[in-house]
Amino acid sequence: MKLEQGQKLLFIGDSITDCERAKPEGEGLFGALGKGYVSLVDAMLQAVYPELGIRVVNKGIGGNTVRDLKARWQEDVINQEPDWLAVMIGINDVWRQFDVPNIKEWHVYMDEYEHTLRELTSAVKPRVKQLVLMTPFYLESNEQDKMRQKMNEYGLVVKRIAEEQGALFIDTQAAFNKVLKELYSATLAWDRVHPTQAGHMVLARAFLNAVGFDWQRS
Amino acid sequence: MKLEQGQKLLFIGDSITDCERAKPEGEGLFGALGKGYVSLVDAMLQAVYPELGIRVVNKGIGGNTVRDLKARWQEDVINQEPDWLAVMIGINDVWRQFDVPNIKEWHVYMDEYEHTLRELTSAVKPRVKQLVLMTPFYLESNEQDKMRQKMNEYGLVVKRIAEEQGALFIDTQAAFNKVLKELYSATLAWDRVHPTQAGHMVLARAFLNAVGFDWQRS
Amino acid sequence: MKLEQGQKLLFIGDSITDCERAKPEGEGLFGALGKGYVSLVDAMLQAVYPELGIRVVNKGIGGNTVRDLKARWQEDVINQEPDWLAVMIGINDVWRQFDVPNIKEWHVYMDEYEHTLRELTSAVKPRVKQLVLMTPFYLESNEQDKMRQKMNEYGLVVKRIAEEQGALFIDTQAAFNKVLKELYSATLAWDRVHPTQAGHMVLARAFLNAVGFDWQRS
Amino acid sequence: MKLEQGQKLLFIGDSITDCERAKPEGEGLFGALGKGYVSLVDAMLQAVYPELGIRVVNKGIGGNTVRDLKARWQEDVINQEPDWLAVMIGINDVWRQFDVPNIKEWHVYMDEYEHTLRELTSAVKPRVKQLVLMTPFYLESNEQDKMRQKMNEYGLVVKRIAEEQGALFIDTQAAFNKVLKELYSATLAWDRVHPTQAGHMVLARAFLNAVGFDWQRS
Amino acid sequence: MKLEQGQKLLFIGDSITDCERAKPEGEGLFGALGKGYVSLVDAMLQAVYPELGIRVVNKGIGGNTVRDLKARWQEDVINQEPDWLAVMIGINDVWRQFDVPNIKEWHVYMDEYEHTLRELTSAVKPRVKQLVLMTPFYLESNEQDKMRQKMNEYGLVVKRIAEEQGALFIDTQAAFNKVLKELYSATLAWDRVHPTQAGHMVLARAFLNAVGFDWQRS
Amino acid sequence: MKLEQGQKLLFIGDSITDCERAKPEGEGLFGALGKGYVSLVDAMLQAVYPELGIRVVNKGIGGNTVRDLKARWQEDVINQEPDWLAVMIGINDVWRQFDVPNIKEWHVYMDEYEHTLRELTSAVKPRVKQLVLMTPFYLESNEQDKMRQKMNEYGLVVKRIAEEQGALFIDTQAAFNKVLKELYSATLAWDRVHPTQAGHMVLARAFLNAVGFDWQRS
Amino acid sequence: MKLEQGQKLLFIGDSITDCERAKPEGEGLFGALGKGYVSLVDAMLQAVYPELGIRVVNKGIGGNTVRDLKARWQEDVINQEPDWLAVMIGINDVWRQFDVPNIKEWHVYMDEYEHTLRELTSAVKPRVKQLVLMTPFYLESNEQDKMRQKMNEYGLVVKRIAEEQGALFIDTQAAFNKVLKELYSATLAWDRVHPTQAGHMVLARAFLNAVGFDWQRS
Amino acid sequence: MKLEQGQKLLFIGDSITDCERAKPEGEGLFGALGKGYVSLVDAMLQAVYPELGIRVVNKGIGGNTVRDLKARWQEDVINQEPDWLAVMIGINDVWRQFDVPNIKEWHVYMDEYEHTLRELTSAVKPRVKQLVLMTPFYLESNEQDKMRQKMNEYGLVVKRIAEEQGALFIDTQAAFNKVLKELYSATLAWDRVHPTQAGHMVLARAFLNAVGFDWQRS
Repeated sequence: MKLEQGQKLLFIGDSITDCERAKPEGEGLFGALGKGYVSLVDAMLQAVYPELGIRVVNKGIGGNTVRDLKARWQEDVINQEPDWLAVMIGINDVWRQFDVPNIKEWHVYMDEYEHTLRELTSAVKPRVKQLVLMTPFYLESNEQDKMRQKMNEYGLVVKRIAEEQGALFIDTQAAFNKVLKELYSATLAWDRVHPTQAGHMVLARAFLNAVGFDWQRS
Repeated sequence: MKLEQGQKLLFIGDSITDCERAKPEGEGLFGALGKGYVSLVDAMLQAVYPELGIRVVNKGIGGNTVRDLKARWQEDVINQEPDWLAVMIGINDVWRQFDVPNIKEWHVYMDEYEHTLRELTSAVKPRVKQLVLMTPFYLESNEQDKMRQKMNEYGLVVKRIAEEQGALFIDTQAAFNKVLKELYSATLAWDRVHPTQAGHMVLARAFLNAVGFDWQRS
Repeated sequence: MKLEQGQKLLFIGDSITDCERAKPEGEGLFGALGKGYVSLVDAMLQAVYPELGIRVVNKGIGGNTVRDLKARWQEDVINQEPDWLAVMIGINDVWRQFDVPNIKEWHVYMDEYEHTLRELTSAVKPRVKQLVLMTPFYLESNEQDKMRQKMNEYGLVVKRIAEEQGALFIDTQAAFNKVLKELYSATLAWDRVHPTQAGHMVLARAFLNAVGFDWQRS
Repeated sequence: MKLEQGQKLLFIGDSITDCERAKPEGEGLFGALGKGYVSLVDAMLQAVYPELGIRVVNKGIGGNTVRDLKARWQEDVINQEPDWLAVMIGINDVWRQFDVPNIKEWHVYMDEYEHTLRELTSAVKPRVKQLVLMTPFYLESNEQDKMRQKMNEYGLVVKRIAEEQGALFIDTQAAFNKVLKELYSATLAWDRVHPTQAGHMVLARAFLNAVGFDWQRS
Repeated sequence: MKLEQGQKLLFIGDSITDCERAKPEGEGLFGALGKGYVSLVDAMLQAVYPELGIRVVNKGIGGNTVRDLKARWQEDVINQEPDWLAVMIGINDVWRQFDVPNIKEWHVYMDEYEHTLRELTSAVKPRVKQLVLMTPFYLESNEQDKMRQKMNEYGLVVKRIAEEQGALFIDTQAAFNKVLKELYSATLAWDRVHPTQAGHMVLARAFLNAVGFDWQRS
Repeated sequence: MKLEQGQKLLFIGDSITDCERAKPEGEGLFGALGKGYVSLVDAMLQAVYPELGIRVVNKGIGGNTVRDLKARWQEDVINQEPDWLAVMIGINDVWRQFDVPNIKEWHVYMDEYEHTLRELTSAVKPRVKQLVLMTPFYLESNEQDKMRQKMNEYGLVVKRIAEEQGALFIDTQAAFNKVLKELYSATLAWDRVHPTQAGHMVLARAFLNAVGFDWQRS
Repeated sequence: MKLEQGQKLLFIGDSITDCERAKPEGEGLFGALGKGYVSLVDAMLQAVYPELGIRVVNKGIGGNTVRDLKARWQEDVINQEPDWLAVMIGINDVWRQFDVPNIKEWHVYMDEYEHTLRELTSAVKPRVKQLVLMTPFYLESNEQDKMRQKMNEYGLVVKRIAEEQGALFIDTQAAFNKVLKELYSATLAWDRVHPTQAGHMVLARAFLNAVGFDWQRS
Repeated sequence: MKLEQGQKLLFIGDSITDCERAKPEGEGLFGALGKGYVSLVDAMLQAVYPELGIRVVNKGIGGNTVRDLKARWQEDVINQEPDWLAVMIGINDVWRQFDVPNIKEWHVYMDEYEHTLRELTSAVKPRVKQLVLMTPFYLESNEQDKMRQKMNEYGLVVKRIAEEQGALFIDTQAAFNKVLKELYSATLAWDRVHPTQAGHMVLARAFLNAVGFDWQRS
């Protein structure tokens, strides 16, 4: 188990991360962590490793792209002084190219995505104990689908930067693909993006597996 | 133009037809026809053929399958005594097989779909001046997609019954396919089923073209 | 068809244009274009010319007069850099003279209307590819009605300025008059101003006819 | 002053009478009489003739036609045992012919209107001390307007029946016409039917004048 | 009739005047004048003298004392440039002494009331064509009641200042006393302060009688 | 202390008793006893005599007269099988005679009040261990006030019946009169009927004093 | 893994099970399973064993005791024909004895609890493939606490009946006790009963461990 | 009785004090004092000592710790110029250590608690006639409970400072302990912190006993 006693674990991202978390502070009582994978990770940590006292913080904001993360990186990441930082961004960067194709300034193309994500992670790397980078995903099993292909390309950027930065890398698309072999995408997400609780469990498991969580621990 | 002076045109179907229409009577003032293709058809008829005084009625109900139509056929179709009857059903019959695969009794499989639709249309045929059958559709351009394939099969059933009954046949999937060549499906429908107003316009045009509507008429 | 690949088409006006559009940005998903003729124009463009990728923007605000347009012209028109600009204003300029006759400062009389509209259109003319001017209208078939007469006079101002500026001119009153021959005004608008969807379709058709839209295009 | 100590005065009609009255009992405290002319009549009676203790009851229901009155005449009129009964009905009987021309069964044509009103008033005449019949009205000054003409015809029916029954007759259209000479109809009613408080005051005055109310009484 | 063509008549006061008027502008359509005596005065003026075009403005604010009027006198009176100004204030000045006796700083005692009212009326006198001063009132018929006695004293101050300023003086308490001889105070006001519509009609009549309104005018 | 271990104490009455209690069962958690004197009595009993486990039930219903109590006596009193029964009724019986003087059938005059209260208390007397009768009250210090005088007469009826039945008698008017010597009635009740929490405390104290509650008990 | 392909797993219980599930059918899309341990179990099953197609149904209802389960056993259990049935009941049976000690009829004492639970499980045993009995729990670490002791006794009843019936037995109290060694009870439940998501995860894990769920399965 | 004619008594604290009081001013009509012990104290003072005219002010704010009181001490205490000041703070200072153990900066540990409370009381002591310090409390009868023990320690700090400052000291925990001998804590508070009205009555009595309130006073 890589998480240690008393560490602070901060998640940042878009609506998948946000999931109705409390604003402005995404931590504390009464569902402040939202209803998604962040809350599931926290619940698992408390249920299985209660003695570690891991502090989980959710800084996701619905609709965000990497461009939005840049605008709030100082306030919502650096100033929070997390020990662990997990970033999952890029879905909206791609989605806007497909659902509002005519509004070009809402699109974040590959170049901007890559250099911004590199800039942000480079800046924060020396300040955290561990950086975790999670790919964006698209709940479509057809690999020829144009948006799925584009999302894969953004995921490769995440992988490349994770390697550069020595970050933990989590391939969320791969985690979903296993399930998509059995379940049609509409079972996991109404719009192929916002998962049901089963989909969030896939994300939580992918994260916990990556940090050495021991499920059988009694 | 096949619609004649003073005729009553009734649409029945699922949420695509319903679109927040007034209940229980889907006609009259204040948006009683809902916000979908039914309302667009009515608006076009009034704007271009105001002298015809076509009476449009909307009897769509969200979530309906052909099994639900059967339960309310007497009340919502026969008793209404329409001159024209347009039926678009089948999306939920198929969709439930894909988004809640474990709840079998919510699925309406092909056999039941076909014999029920045949039974309903046979019963009403002698009582109306014109029957119109519209296929269900799925806003997915990938023809290998399983749900798209299944929807196509249901569409073929509609086509077959239309031929049997001498009904006007409208292939809504074909109408959408033209647009899907240019626009990614997410532009037309968040969930590949419930269209934006552009998608409803595709449906309205397909209907109006089939009834001999003259767009250029001054 | 005069609209070309990738152009931006901006509508500005009063509540007829606004029609519950999203604020402050009147474009994008989820009904951001409102429920009126702007949305119908957009739907028709996407349904019939999907390959053109026309970007439609709605900047209508309920209750606006030409005086209000002046106050936000820089922000809501010039700064948006549209290729096409369509303006329909004047209903409230006239209406307030009839429904709150005692509050003089809410009235915009003919002189102010004319010189303001001329000033605004002159300023924007060199910056757009095409300017479209639409008359205000009043859904009253009685030509002796005082408010109808006054509205006609404002419409003539629009026509005159359109000619001066070489703008496309759309006589919305004339478009409605054809329908009013068949339908009593209460069928088209509860208050003779805010149209039903049929009325908005009349406006949308008038606009599309003016820009060379080909309805029969397959 | 024709109203006497302790009498019960009941008004029945449509939305003009209703005006948000309490349901099911339209009398008592807390605005139970609604916000229209009935409440103004009551307020004037209490303010100027407090010693008479006139009991005012409002049984108007929005959207009613004379056909609806027939269905509730026993319960809402006969069973209430009023001393005075005032009836104002007919606006919706006419209006539906103009705003939903295609839905014929919502129209109440002249014949049905006349024989129903005669039947209802004949039945109640022997049971009340005084019957008052008020014409329907339309706030349109153009006498050539089709709906205005139709409303006038219904008003003549009311006049004829009032004479037959020896009822007090109140020509509300005539009362409004005086004001319409000075004010455009939009000042008095957004939709030419539902008046502002000024319009309700016109109705209240017409009623009070007809019953011998002494305005100057100190 | 003392009010003349095109004049602006502004009322200022507390909750009796306010009565749910629109904020910040207390004039215009849709019940902007509230539901109290101001709206009744306006309705009577429009119904009986439509040709005068009197513009009525309501600047009452619930809970106000004369101290509050002072704070907004420049903005809500002077800047409005009314021709006629009617002031009814003092109920809360007195009431707070009786319902929250322990919170002394909420009380406005006689001295402050008198000198503030004199200061305000002196300042505005030269700027208006006619000043109207209305007494505060208390709907209690027992003349020995302490709050009734105190209210009478404040009413005498209003009378004195009206004489000094040559203002029209309206004794609202006297107007109510006539009705209170016949009706118990609870019939007119739940809390002896906020009147039913009958009570507001007493106020409206008192005002209209004072300005020479001719009720019988045909 | 007359209340004994495990007894059930039921209060019945009008809005003073009701005070937003839970419906239909007026007992249990989450403020089910309402916000008035019943809740204060319960709180005092639990705070000072927690070992007694007295079960308090609230069956007050706003607007009730003794006529309403009769209609629900079997269900809400007899069937509940209380050990103690406290009744406070009569305020609305009197109030309606003063606030809606014209609606005679809403008034409960002295004769009906007396014989109904006698009938109800006689019927329940043998079934309870102790009956408590509380007078209605009116928070008006002027003894010449007509409604206060009438309320006193109803209070005398309660006293007479209490003596006949051997019931505990509580003169709530007398309890309030002491406070009214110091505080103006508006301090205790906005409408002279519904008390502030201070007024409810007066009622609770009067009840607790009558049952031998020892305030100083440590 | 004991759950097999296509089986139906039904949970019944009180608010811990309910957790805002959809009514009346606790299955399907859009959070129909609620926000508690039932939803977590379903999410885990879908995420890790998607090919099994386990159908999870939630029939919990807040506030229920075993007495309430009896009343709906036929409808909500027998008629549903589940393959697996999991029952967790008893918290309210005990809690009411402590939070409303005076309302005896709301308490379900041990005897009734035991014979009712035995009766219900006996009746359903032959109709299901596997019965699971989960103890009630109380999130209080002090073993001398009276309510905790009582809850333990009810838990022993569950254990005894599980043995009699050959049911899978889950000691939820034991599962929580491990966590309570590290975390104060207020961290897991505001009221020591309704858990945070971490507490629901403890329940879900206890259930999944009992059915042979393989967490590490890839 | 230590409170004297016309004195102002201000309470400050956390949610127990706040209890839905009006903001920003916690005094006046319409439940401005909230629904807790402050309102009960006020009600008792008015009911039993109406002639004293004690002015009660509530400045509690939910969630506050002593650190929050420090931030608003000048505005909410010093500037209010109370004669009596009652402070009850510390529950949240302790609670956060137990319900959100991982968020250290929300905890107020003993040292900070003690020196801040000393600083605040020292500053205000010379400005008030009487200072009252009430301990925080926890409604748990088990004296070995960790949070109960911690709360006791904070209570001892309050006692020590009360002695230093010559303040009236009220041991609220001791007052509750008497009741907790008879009633399980869940009867008094759902979450062992926010009391039912019975619990607030315990607090009110403890306060009133400390100030020499004579309950038997007639």
